[in-house]
Amino acid sequence: MPVDVLIMKAVNAENTARAVEVRAQLDARRILGLNFMSSPGSGKTSLLEATFERLGGRLRFAVVEGDVYTALDAERIARHGVAAVQINTEGSCHMTAHMLLEALPRLNLDGVDVLVIENIGNLICPAGFSLGEHQKVALLSTAEGADKVDKYPRLFAESHVNVITKTDLAPHVDFDVAAVAARLRQLNPAAPVLAVSAKTGAGIDEWCDWLAAQRQAQLSGAGA
Amino acid sequence: MPVDVLIMKAVNAENTARAVEVRAQLDARRILGLNFMSSPGSGKTSLLEATFERLGGRLRFAVVEGDVYTALDAERIARHGVAAVQINTEGSCHMTAHMLLEALPRLNLDGVDVLVIENIGNLICPAGFSLGEHQKVALLSTAEGADKVDKYPRLFAESHVNVITKTDLAPHVDFDVAAVAARLRQLNPAAPVLAVSAKTGAGIDEWCDWLAAQRQAQLSGAGA
Repeated sequence: MPVDVLIMKAVNAENTARAVEVRAQLDARRILGLNFMSSPGSGKTSLLEATFERLGGRLRFAVVEGDVYTALDAERIARHGVAAVQINTEGSCHMTAHMLLEALPRLNLDGVDVLVIENIGNLICPAGFSLGEHQKVALLSTAEGADKVDKYPRLFAESHVNVITKTDLAPHVDFDVAAVAARLRQLNPAAPVLAVSAKTGAGIDEWCDWLAAQRQAQLSGAGA
Repeated sequence: MPVDVLIMKAVNAENTARAVEVRAQLDARRILGLNFMSSPGSGKTSLLEATFERLGGRLRFAVVEGDVYTALDAERIARHGVAAVQINTEGSCHMTAHMLLEALPRLNLDGVDVLVIENIGNLICPAGFSLGEHQKVALLSTAEGADKVDKYPRLFAESHVNVITKTDLAPHVDFDVAAVAARLRQLNPAAPVLAVSAKTGAGIDEWCDWLAAQRQAQLSGAGA
């Protein structure tokens, strides 16, 4: 086995051990952990902003924002009155569970229902690293093109829900939402497919229903 | 220095040595090498297709297509009568110069003027790895959002030309092309900024003029 593969296996085993620690902290506090993953610019932060507007009165959120260098997204989140901590990966293309262990003590988690991890904008690297989350949320924007499901299958195959975003742009980019949803279901039959536009609000209620149902399932003991 | 940083430095030194070999092969054949880098779905393949339509009669192209798993893009390229070879990185988030050394013998390079390397769709990893190219071409689609310049600065700061794509979508996504072009120029004053729409054809002539000028400069000995 080549040296770099051996090293990656060791890095991954170390990450998995840290992810178990993150999960234990979340479970001890009965917090639902969601790991949001997608390309750059597919609308993770916009979907979160729309979510806080709809569910902010019912559920308390906290956010760990992953970014390569800036704090732009954490600033957007904080404007909604949601606690956010920024992790800068300084060039790395994904977050690790170790970063989460460093971030959690910097957040006030009292009374928090849902911890959102907004991962680095990247369709490849984040798929390989568990962050201790209960659910993986994969996003694909219509502007990226329908072929991305087959070009970057792992992220969509391993997620717990696949969300097609920016559906308002679909007519401008020749994106067939129904056909892509069917392909996603074929790739990952266990994951529901939702279609949303943070701009028009289309589909946001269904998305929020999915999220609230996950939280309810966790509290009733039926969740992951 | 942590072990993983030491390993990355060794991997990079090895890559640089291979990149020098690629460059020597290109120079020996007087082929201009271009490395296209961007997010998934920012329009690399569409820009190439538009380029072949305009310049195919004047310049002979060959393409090395990087992809994580599929051959979808190489198939699109081949439809234009352009020689293409597919490199599947099997999960890796960038191409390496070693992959280029394996790909080049599989292409008929007789009479080729321009070798295009279409890198993996990723704004982070490809920036750190030279492939022996003469010029780095960075693309940013309007649908990704203006903040991506500051969130992923390295790719745009180290490129030889920055291309804003999908300008036809700008009015639908609140993207100020002039403002982003100004920010790109500030980040990387040496690189021209072009704005194109492969869909409407806007800006494609200027892009093709830039490409043809690079080729002309190489032949006249003034190029990189």
